[in-house]
Amino acid sequence: MKPTNLKGTRDFLPHEALRRKFIFSSIEKRFQRYSFRPIETPAMERLSTLTGKYGEEGDRLIFKVLNSGDFLKKADQEALNTMQSGRLATSIAEKALRYDLTVPFARFVVQHQNEIQFPFKRYQIQPVWRADRPQKGRYQEFYQCDADVVGSTSLRNDVEMIHLMDDVLSGLGLSDVTIKVNNRKILTGLTHFLGIADRLNDFAIAIDKLDKIGVDGVMDVLKKQNMPASVLAHAPEILSGQLTSKQLETWLDPIEIGKEGLNELNFILNRVNPKTASKVKFEISLARGLDYYTGSIFEVVSDEYPIGSICGGGRYDDLTGVFGLKGLSGIGISFGADRIYDVLLALDRFPDRVEENHRLLFLNFGEVEADYCTKFLADFRKAGIACELYPDQVKIQKQMKYADANDYRWVAMVGENEISNDTITLKNMNDGSQSILNLQGVIELIMH
Amino acid sequence: MKPTNLKGTRDFLPHEALRRKFIFSSIEKRFQRYSFRPIETPAMERLSTLTGKYGEEGDRLIFKVLNSGDFLKKADQEALNTMQSGRLATSIAEKALRYDLTVPFARFVVQHQNEIQFPFKRYQIQPVWRADRPQKGRYQEFYQCDADVVGSTSLRNDVEMIHLMDDVLSGLGLSDVTIKVNNRKILTGLTHFLGIADRLNDFAIAIDKLDKIGVDGVMDVLKKQNMPASVLAHAPEILSGQLTSKQLETWLDPIEIGKEGLNELNFILNRVNPKTASKVKFEISLARGLDYYTGSIFEVVSDEYPIGSICGGGRYDDLTGVFGLKGLSGIGISFGADRIYDVLLALDRFPDRVEENHRLLFLNFGEVEADYCTKFLADFRKAGIACELYPDQVKIQKQMKYADANDYRWVAMVGENEISNDTITLKNMNDGSQSILNLQGVIELIMH
Repeated sequence: MKPTNLKGTRDFLPHEALRRKFIFSSIEKRFQRYSFRPIETPAMERLSTLTGKYGEEGDRLIFKVLNSGDFLKKADQEALNTMQSGRLATSIAEKALRYDLTVPFARFVVQHQNEIQFPFKRYQIQPVWRADRPQKGRYQEFYQCDADVVGSTSLRNDVEMIHLMDDVLSGLGLSDVTIKVNNRKILTGLTHFLGIADRLNDFAIAIDKLDKIGVDGVMDVLKKQNMPASVLAHAPEILSGQLTSKQLETWLDPIEIGKEGLNELNFILNRVNPKTASKVKFEISLARGLDYYTGSIFEVVSDEYPIGSICGGGRYDDLTGVFGLKGLSGIGISFGADRIYDVLLALDRFPDRVEENHRLLFLNFGEVEADYCTKFLADFRKAGIACELYPDQVKIQKQMKYADANDYRWVAMVGENEISNDTITLKNMNDGSQSILNLQGVIELIMH
Repeated sequence: MKPTNLKGTRDFLPHEALRRKFIFSSIEKRFQRYSFRPIETPAMERLSTLTGKYGEEGDRLIFKVLNSGDFLKKADQEALNTMQSGRLATSIAEKALRYDLTVPFARFVVQHQNEIQFPFKRYQIQPVWRADRPQKGRYQEFYQCDADVVGSTSLRNDVEMIHLMDDVLSGLGLSDVTIKVNNRKILTGLTHFLGIADRLNDFAIAIDKLDKIGVDGVMDVLKKQNMPASVLAHAPEILSGQLTSKQLETWLDPIEIGKEGLNELNFILNRVNPKTASKVKFEISLARGLDYYTGSIFEVVSDEYPIGSICGGGRYDDLTGVFGLKGLSGIGISFGADRIYDVLLALDRFPDRVEENHRLLFLNFGEVEADYCTKFLADFRKAGIACELYPDQVKIQKQMKYADANDYRWVAMVGENEISNDTITLKNMNDGSQSILNLQGVIELIMH
């Protein structure tokens, strides 16, 4: 009879919720420092807004919301008679839960194009839902933290995005990261050079696996793809990281798009500030989201705990074409809050007390003492101290257990003596020390 | 072809999203000051967890999420054959969107009872979904901001809840409120006195309408309910606010539960601090959520813009009994963020710039100037100033329009002269004044 949450979803206890807030607010603060402004979109979108945007597999993973009321009335009768679930679904579910923040953002931009000023810099920190099979580290509900600039083709945005990725992660205590950078145009140029201009996607899929399967693994994939000899001859040099920029320049020199890609890359790398520049690495095998990105491509991994990408993004030519607004280009990045959580936990990088340290529990020694303490609470709160009086008259041992469980650093004891002397006995739970102070003294000790 | 959001749901543009964040973070800060700690539960719960908790009407309004994959395989064949949507739904939708935060909280407490320490003080600020017919001011997705203490019967919690309601609303600029307080036990006692102990619910439904339909209206309802003469004789006095506490005491003196209610009320009112006490009003007609609350009942309205309740709550005996954990009592309050938004907007009570005021836009006068400015951005951000360089080289007029649209107070201009003099020309958009300063001077002017 004991109820549980659904598989693939999570409850967060206070200490977990507080850590999550620490991550979100740290990210949000940096987004704001870079002049991004928040928007919100609803959890539910029209199913028709979402379908066809994420590929066949993606469509399958969209959670559909059943129409209210007598939904069978409008159901597709033939689908019903022939028991075709997929086809029936679209006739009994007009709503769906958002699958990512990008498509709702594109919808938002088109719908509100006359209410916003371009370039439009927005951030959005909201949950998304995917009907993936639940497994360790993969959830059906998780947060995305996205920042995008749309309506500007300036590469200065690319530079700022690199700064922002570094600042956000440094702000979370993750200074040791590698910010991998590539450019779709360089990859396109490379396929021209290799004589496989029509097979960019295959090539990208293969080389993007380098991190996971190594040079030999990628070579196997390329062979299985029946890539021509030119590819098999040059691939080891490309994949091994031995390819010099001089060599790449020579290869791409006669190829317009390749040269453009290199110029873009150099424009950006020349403008990244020195602190961040040391973390930036051009990685020609980075081909993330290639079907979507048209210029810069980014991916960030932690050097200390490299469990995969903790941030990614890139430049796109056409965010909103699918909704009828053509030629709106921009650049976006997305932080994976759940993976960042795992990294911070593994590295023991969360602050000891994620809550503000200014928290005080008044023990309850009886009705008279409790009444006396109640009058103080407002003063402490006004001074910026989070506090409470233990509500019930129970054994002090039980109250101290509560103090522990709720991670209190400070406990105030006010008994008969304290009342007659107008003092408070303050216990520091970190070291067990006690001080007898007046109200102002307690505030000063806790706040300073 | 232009896509739109679903009826009943809302997009929030930056200025709206910022105002909402202002409300949420203000509420959250006070929740924390009162030592409530956050939890999060998933948007989706088992449908079986939610059904049967909100009455028949509520069940109808729960959004159900269609099972993934070939959901017809497990569908109730008889319901299909007889086209019964309601019955079919439970066989093709095992998940649902949460309808409020209380039932998921109850589920959470039962599931995690061994991981939490009682009394458990949690807050939760998350959206909920209801399939209400969309209409002005009523949305299918909206936020609830709840704070509850469970596992404590102490009336000191009731006192603190009253303080908290006042502090949250004062923090939002809504100091002029009436905090209506009643007690279920007083109402029960009253029905005993009136000889209608078996008709508490009818009586409560009638008198709870007082605000909307007035004394005459309630009298009509009571007559339609065929209430006995004793009720009709005493009701005008009860409803008119003329009933003295002396009189009420006399009436309830022989009725145990009524006396208990009065004692509870007096215990609480005697301990509310003076600042808040002037806003608290015992209102015997307040019968909100009577089937759920068992002691104190609260409701807050704005005196300046009384469009209805902006906060409500009460004490309950049994949060989790329905999930098999009996006898866990507590008290909870809930703020209606959407209505608070409407009140603040109507009263023009939002800060002029909801964002931090420390925001600076660098105009883009050309590549050389832009490169020069880029180097400064990190210094300003480090100093706490949100800033950006306009990314594209376009007419200054267009850039100034961007400054306006994005609510910038400060605009920095760096041209040839400034570069050679190592200065920045800073424009105050509030009054149009300009100052020529060095970097440190700009930081000081903006931050102080």
